[in-house]
Formats: sequence, structure tokens, C-alpha cells
Amino acid sequence: MNTKRAPTPKSPTAGDYLIASKSCELMNLQYFLQMGKLVQCLSNLVHALQCERGASNVFLGSSGDKFARERQALVTESDRLRGEFEQSLAEIHQELTAHPVSSRLLNQLASALHGLEGLPELRRCVSGQKVTAASATEDYSGLIHNLIAVVFEAADTAVDPTIAGLLVAMVHLMNGKEFCGQERAVGSAGFSSGQFDRALSQRMMHLIEAQERCFEVFTSFADRDSLKLWQTLRGHAREAGIEKLRQLGTSSVGRYKSLDPSLADRWFTVMSERMDELKQVEDSVEGCFHARCIERFADARNSLAHQETLIASLDAPEPSSHPMLVLCDSGNERKAGETWASDGVGQQFGRSIFDLVQEQTCRLQQMTDELRSARDALEDRKTQEKAVLLLMDHRKISNDEAHRVLRKLAMDQGKKLPEVARALVSMADLLK
Amino acid sequence: MNTKRAPTPKSPTAGDYLIASKSCELMNLQYFLQMGKLVQCLSNLVHALQCERGASNVFLGSSGDKFARERQALVTESDRLRGEFEQSLAEIHQELTAHPVSSRLLNQLASALHGLEGLPELRRCVSGQKVTAASATEDYSGLIHNLIAVVFEAADTAVDPTIAGLLVAMVHLMNGKEFCGQERAVGSAGFSSGQFDRALSQRMMHLIEAQERCFEVFTSFADRDSLKLWQTLRGHAREAGIEKLRQLGTSSVGRYKSLDPSLADRWFTVMSERMDELKQVEDSVEGCFHARCIERFADARNSLAHQETLIASLDAPEPSSHPMLVLCDSGNERKAGETWASDGVGQQFGRSIFDLVQEQTCRLQQMTDELRSARDALEDRKTQEKAVLLLMDHRKISNDEAHRVLRKLAMDQGKKLPEVARALVSMADLLK
Repeated sequence: MNTKRAPTPKSPTAGDYLIASKSCELMNLQYFLQMGKLVQCLSNLVHALQCERGASNVFLGSSGDKFARERQALVTESDRLRGEFEQSLAEIHQELTAHPVSSRLLNQLASALHGLEGLPELRRCVSGQKVTAASATEDYSGLIHNLIAVVFEAADTAVDPTIAGLLVAMVHLMNGKEFCGQERAVGSAGFSSGQFDRALSQRMMHLIEAQERCFEVFTSFADRDSLKLWQTLRGHAREAGIEKLRQLGTSSVGRYKSLDPSLADRWFTVMSERMDELKQVEDSVEGCFHARCIERFADARNSLAHQETLIASLDAPEPSSHPMLVLCDSGNERKAGETWASDGVGQQFGRSIFDLVQEQTCRLQQMTDELRSARDALEDRKTQEKAVLLLMDHRKISNDEAHRVLRKLAMDQGKKLPEVARALVSMADLLK
Repeated sequence: MNTKRAPTPKSPTAGDYLIASKSCELMNLQYFLQMGKLVQCLSNLVHALQCERGASNVFLGSSGDKFARERQALVTESDRLRGEFEQSLAEIHQELTAHPVSSRLLNQLASALHGLEGLPELRRCVSGQKVTAASATEDYSGLIHNLIAVVFEAADTAVDPTIAGLLVAMVHLMNGKEFCGQERAVGSAGFSSGQFDRALSQRMMHLIEAQERCFEVFTSFADRDSLKLWQTLRGHAREAGIEKLRQLGTSSVGRYKSLDPSLADRWFTVMSERMDELKQVEDSVEGCFHARCIERFADARNSLAHQETLIASLDAPEPSSHPMLVLCDSGNERKAGETWASDGVGQQFGRSIFDLVQEQTCRLQQMTDELRSARDALEDRKTQEKAVLLLMDHRKISNDEAHRVLRKLAMDQGKKLPEVARALVSMADLLK
């Protein structure tokens, strides 16, 4: 494919670099086309591990009575999808390691793979009922977290705003779904024991709120089709049922009155259905991502081919006898393209190559501007994580409590959560 | 060199990706080692063009009486340095075009080269005295602006905070020096005509203020040695002389009373000396940049070699029989490394590889945090440029006037300039 140009040993021209700039975009799109496969594999593997976690939970909670066979089937499925993930990783390995700004992504992959290496031992512990359901849930959650974080880091390296936006939608959807999975586990623990203690209730509330925040970000970055699927999911009768069960879990009713243990099965079933549907929304986002990559790639390739032809035709008629007069009204503090746009001089000669460079300047600037909101969403998420860790560390409180403190702070000050988190993190830097 | 690993066709391990993450950093450092040469060449070429512009100005201002021979010598020197720049560009071409996130840098290079292609025609116009001094100054300034913008874009792709910081220092120093060069031209026009009209005075004030703002950013990112050189420059007796001449140019004295035309020579001499010294500060920053790149590169290479040995030794004793237990307290909303840091379980096995991944996570996060201030400085600069263009466009005013409006806004609101510029740009987005 014609995405790379042979090195120009002498006097590279403006046209060469204009082409190189376009080729660079093309390379990046190709990279994300492959990245899409990896994200799909991650989404599949995460879903399988969530199913496996759920079954392991029930298995452990029932002292091995329930789901023994189901769990085994799910383990086999997880392993199959883990194989697919590792295969797609091997396929993109060259591009990944040649990408000079992906150290964080690569290190996150190391974390994720490190986690997966511990999976057989975790399963042995579950099979032998040597761990509690709560502890197994935590282990699976850590593993899943590290897999989702790979998508986060991938989103952070995207240059095309559409692609970055869809990855931001994806990572928030995956995170929301994971909180949903953790909520399923917490609810299962409560309903099967017939009671929610204060800590369990609060954890459930935290997970519900965390989910909603993720889904909010998802809806502001998702494509139309995925949004429709999402709205269908939200409009489903099941959601009202979930709401009722949630109220039992988070209100004092569930704390002081013993609940019907048969609710546990109902809870597990509806939440599992919900997660399966969320997975379908993920697949839709992934499908859109793939289509968009292909579309953008085709556009970029056409545009590159077109420009190569144009530049070749410009170069042809005695380039040195038609020099371009470089004029601009002030030069200082202006972008190249914009300076030229307002300039009426020097149009006779070389206007075309200039036009092309200018067009590319404007396009790249617009892309950078549009990229901002996607980057901000990722940044907000990181800042909140950092604020939570700071609070946990300073006040010696749990993750849930730290989230609560942060939310209370935001409510009290009438500010948005990311804003409060930012203020906290910046103050902490000052106090160091 | 051992910066790339052969593709792993099957089951890549955590260790592989940890190594890849380190190699990636190494690649990036190597890229900036070469980028340093390009920046040096740009700094040299810009200085030569500034000298050529100054001489052309005097030549045109004296109707060809003065500096005819000097100007020719400076043209030859510019061409020599242009050759060096293009040579260093050819050397880094492969790396530049293989870097998937440098479309903006590549396009800026296209702009810069496009500008240089017009240089022979511009010189012919100067030789034939077919342009005014003011118009020639503008043409040279546009060209120089496009060359400096290449350094700006290079700074924007840096990942290592030290390297990014030094490039931010460099680009602001270069910009400040360029404003100084434009101030020399404006002053020369005023002093040689014996009078500063209102527009000339205001332009001079704008250029003085713009310089100071650039130098402020420079001082907050420069290395110690360059800062010392800078302070020596500021402490030089010449500066007081420049200050006096500036007062003549910017106060009403120079507007209503005819000034001694011999001041023009004095002005040109002291300002040229100042620019030569600023060039020395640039060389110092460049030297530090080069040394830092080499140092960081050696560190990274050693660390990589060390880790490769470590990981090989970890892999050796039956890796499958020592699986790692993946445990963490909650998983959600936490960075991999930090989750593990607070976790006392699963330490017996695989602690070492985990430690390595965690160490890398923390280091990369710290680098990202430290990178923030450098990126913010670049961002501020872009936002101000955008705000100025917005004002020019909406109010149909000149670049200088737009700067004045922005500064007045900041003063009136008691806010910093970047803050006001940001507010303006965000409002403009709303009004679109």
C-alpha cells in the first residue's frame, strides 16, 4: 500500500511534506482499523469474564451446589476469547510497538496480560471453594479493570476526533457495564443472604451512580444507531423491575427486614439480561467504529491519491521559473494558512500548492479542536480517579467513601464532579 | 540497536509488553535526539534570515546606498544554512514520516518549505528595489514565522516532560527574538524617518509586550545555564540604552518632535547585538536539549537492558508452575499499579514482574503529569492566536489592535491573558 514514501535524500519540497502529512493521517487510520479488532476482542473477553465472575459467585454462594457445569462452560468460553484477544494482539504487535507514543498503552497491556496470567490460579481457588464470593469478585474485577483500561489508553492515542469520540463512548460503556456487573454481584450477595447491611447498600448506591455517570458520557459520544439501541434498553420493562429491586437493596427496607431469598435469582436473571443487552450496544459501537475507520481510511486514501496527482502536475511545468512570492500581512502570531487566507497578493503563481497546504492546515486544526472534547472526557475520568486515590490516601477511607466525599463536595458547592476533582488534585499538588 | 523487538507471533506475555513499553520510550527519545539537530538548523536559519531581513531593510531604506555588499554576504549565509536545514530534514525524513501522530508537524514543514521556495523571488524584488522596506519585512516575517512554527509543532509531539519543556523554552525564546527583530525593523523605520506616527508607536509597544510575554514563558521552562546567560543579557548596560530609545519611539516625544536621524544607526546596532546574544541563549538551550536527550536515552537504554535481564531470569524457572494470583481490593476506578500497591495479597509469586509493571505505570503517569505544564504553555499560545484571529475577523481590526483589545480585557477583568483568550474562544464557539 502506498502509505509510506521512500526517503527523499535531497531537498524535500513543500509538496513532499504535504503528501507526508496526509500519509501520516492514513497510517494512523490504518492503525486504528486494527485497533478496532483488538477493542472488539477486549469487549468480548470482558463480557465472558463478567459471565464467568457471575457464575463463580453463584457457585461459591451456594457452596458449589449451583452453576458448577455452567461455570465450566463459561470458563471454556473465556479461554477461547482470551485466545482470540491474544491472537489479535499478535497481529497488531508490530504496529503497536512501532508507535512511538504508545508506552502507556503497551504498559497497560503488560498489566492486562499479567492479570490474565493469574486466571488459572484464581479458577482453581474458586473450584476448590478456597475463596469467598466477595474476594473472587474482587479478583475478577481487577482483571476486567485492567482490560478496559487498555481501551482507555487506546482512546488516548487517537488523533481523528470521530475515532477518538467513539472510543471514548466505548470505554465509558464498558466501564458502565462493568459497574453494572459489580452491582449484580453486590445485589446477589444481599438478596441471597436476605439482607443488605449498610456497607452493601452504600456500595450498591455508589455502583448505580458510577454507572449513570459512565452512561452519560457514553450517550454524548455514541453514534446514532448505538444510541437507539441504548434507548430501547432503557425503555424496556425490565428496567422498572430492576429499579424496584434496587430500592429494596439501597433503602432501609432491605437492611432491617429480611428479604425473600428467591429475589436473588430474579435479580441475577434481570441483571444478566441487562448486561447481555449492554454487550449488544457495545457491539453496535464497535461496528460503527469499524465502519467509520474504513470510511475515513477510504476518504484519506482518495484525497492522498488526488493530491499526489495534483502536486505532480504542479511540479511538471518548470517549477523554478514559477517561484511563489511569499507575502503575508504580519506573520507574527498567526497560523500559516490563515495568514494566507486573508492575503490577496502572490496569487498568480503557486496558488494551488499553497491552497492545498492551507486546506490541510485548517483541516488539522479543526480536527485538533474537535478532539478536545474526547480528550477532556478521558482527562476528567483520570482526574476523578486521582482525586479518589488522594482522598483514600489522606483520609484513610475506602474507595466507596472517597467517591461519596467527592460527590458530597460537588453537591455542596453546586459544582460538577470533574470540576471538584480537578480543584482537589490541584490543591494536593500545592500541599505536597 | 535493540529498540525494536521482533513480532511475537503467539501469546505475547506481560514481560514482552513491559519491554515494548520501554522500547517505545527509547524510540521516542531517539527521535527527539534527531529532532534536536533539526531545531538547531532552524534556529540558525531563522537567525540568518533575521540578519538578511535587517540588512535588506537598511538597503531599501537607504535606496540601495547602504549594506548592498553586506546584504549579499548574508544572503549567501542564509542559503548555506538553508542547505543545512534541508540536509537535516532529509536525514530525519524516515523517522518523521513513520511517526503516526506528526501530520501537523509535517504540514507545518510543507508551509515552511513553501515559504522558502519564494525566497529567491523576494530577494530579486529587494535587489531591484521593487518592494518597500515594510513589505519586505512582512515577507521575511511570514517566512520566519513558518519556520518557528515547526519547532512549536515538534514541541507538541514530545512525550518526555524535560524534552517537551526545553522545546517550549526554545520556541518561546525564538518567538521572543523574532518579535525583537520585528521591533528592530519598526524602530529603524521610525528613527530613520525621524518620527514615529501613532501606528508605528503602537506596533512597537505591541512588539515589546509580546516579547516580554514570550521571555516569561521561556524563563519558566529554560535550563539553569541558559537562564544565567539570559540574566547576563538582561543585566547588560545595552539594555538601558535600548530602554531609552524605546521610550522615544513609544512616547509622544517621538511623535511630535523630530528625532535625530543618527539614532537609527545606534538603534540598529544595539538591537542587532541583542539579537546575536539572544541567539547565543538559543544555542545554550539547544546544547542543553541535546545533552538531556543523550542522557535520557542512555538511562532508558540501561533500564531496558536491565529489565530484559530481569524478565529473562523471571521467565526461566518454570513459569507455568508459578502462576500469579490476581487480587485487588476493588478494581474499579483505580490505576493498575496503585491498586496493587495497597494490596498485601499474592506477594509470594510473581511479585517482581508485577513490581516492574507497577514502577513503569507510576513513572509514565508522573511523566504525563509533568508534561501538563509544557502542553498548557503551548495550548495557551494557540488559544491566544485564535482569540486574536477571532477579534480581527469579528471586529475587522488589525492584529495589533486585536492584541490590544485582548490585553485591555485582561486588565479590566483582572485576569491573565490566556484566561481571557480561553473565555473568548469558548464564547465564540457558542455564538457560531
